[in-house]
Amino acid sequence: MTGPAATFGFRDVDPEAKPGLVRGVFDRVARRYDLMNDLMSGGVHRLWKDAVAARLNPQPGETIVDCAGGTGDMARRFAKMARRAQLRRGGSDARIFVVDYNAEMIGAGRAKGSEPEIAWAVGDAQRLPLPDACADAYVIAFGIRNVTDISAALREARRVLKPGGRFLCLEFSRPVTEPLQKAYDAYSFKVIPEIGARFAGDREAYQYLVESIRRFPDQRRFAAMIGEAGFARVDYTNFTGGVAALHTARVV
Amino acid sequence: MTGPAATFGFRDVDPEAKPGLVRGVFDRVARRYDLMNDLMSGGVHRLWKDAVAARLNPQPGETIVDCAGGTGDMARRFAKMARRAQLRRGGSDARIFVVDYNAEMIGAGRAKGSEPEIAWAVGDAQRLPLPDACADAYVIAFGIRNVTDISAALREARRVLKPGGRFLCLEFSRPVTEPLQKAYDAYSFKVIPEIGARFAGDREAYQYLVESIRRFPDQRRFAAMIGEAGFARVDYTNFTGGVAALHTARVV
Repeated sequence: MTGPAATFGFRDVDPEAKPGLVRGVFDRVARRYDLMNDLMSGGVHRLWKDAVAARLNPQPGETIVDCAGGTGDMARRFAKMARRAQLRRGGSDARIFVVDYNAEMIGAGRAKGSEPEIAWAVGDAQRLPLPDACADAYVIAFGIRNVTDISAALREARRVLKPGGRFLCLEFSRPVTEPLQKAYDAYSFKVIPEIGARFAGDREAYQYLVESIRRFPDQRRFAAMIGEAGFARVDYTNFTGGVAALHTARVV
Repeated sequence: MTGPAATFGFRDVDPEAKPGLVRGVFDRVARRYDLMNDLMSGGVHRLWKDAVAARLNPQPGETIVDCAGGTGDMARRFAKMARRAQLRRGGSDARIFVVDYNAEMIGAGRAKGSEPEIAWAVGDAQRLPLPDACADAYVIAFGIRNVTDISAALREARRVLKPGGRFLCLEFSRPVTEPLQKAYDAYSFKVIPEIGARFAGDREAYQYLVESIRRFPDQRRFAAMIGEAGFARVDYTNFTGGVAALHTARVV
């Protein structure tokens, strides 16, 4: 190990090993990923995602990068919304690039059928296969905590956004009250790995998900990191008392 | 089968089946792909590729799409040439996007080490994960005959190129004299599958390669297809008596 350690759940790992470990987790759960999200969150993740799409408010002709977009559940929301606006007012198709590090997740997404607005790519959030200043918006939902070098991914987001472009990041965060934190801890460490074991046959993968959430910086620390990557107007909104948070920022 | 048949070597196959079949071939040969190219062509493929890179003459600051770029042997040539020009005259880094349909090929390319100019993506030549008019050049070397819908790939190339952007396609083609054609046939159908069987342990994959070359349109027919996709100034140069050909065109 030469640089600082990366984290894999609660383990400190060699940064070079993290991509492989994370990839293994998602390879194993790809087919059941959406179902598991429903089971684990009681469907609440859908409401959070709807809220993010509403905040983005995708428009005809916009170019939107859906980073770590996996099975495309965000991208399909964006495509639908842009198309509805297009039917009302005209304009060209939105263009949505789903980029995910994991080929199995992209495969599962493509297999669900693809809207004409969506193009899929397996690529690295730290080194996006996209030119500078090409996107109106960059969205990453439940993806950034799996990236080895979060700051590098934030700088890449900044790079591909046009001036005025918007950054939206949905991620698990810190519940803001102590009772909620306690209930959430109990649920995360006892219930979720159990659900993972029963329904996906993979306790370890879900154990990783829970631990990686705990290791991720809290709302304020993450907001500071976004600012350090060169974004302006950094802000966040808590969802479900801070179980998740939407961080937003702009390129000026 | 609903639309016209796609070809897989000499077999007509359902267009929906072709991507999987082609992917299987390249999954199986990815690790030994470059070695096999050397064995099969007696190293001549390197000279052809050098000639293509020289024709492209990559410059600092240019954005180059290396489609079906697999293990990155073209991309590395481009990066090196642009960097040499940059050392002499300055300018920003070239940006080279290697896009390949096959995750194993991209994996093999990344594993060889990556130049800072190169970003890798697994994506579809018929639906590139790139915005309109973002590239100065689009290169596809020994890739286009594996694409299910060649015309769709040509239109995608046209779409991602800037006005003035250049298209370069290196592909096996038709030897221009009969004696050469005969020698080449004998070599292709007898020697190459044998080399494939001995050195990669996969006769069928190499049989596919040989057959797919025969099914690919000849120099003139392919030039016409490029024109139909909206390119101007379509031209071609034969290499080794037409065993391969470089087709070039421009967006005007």
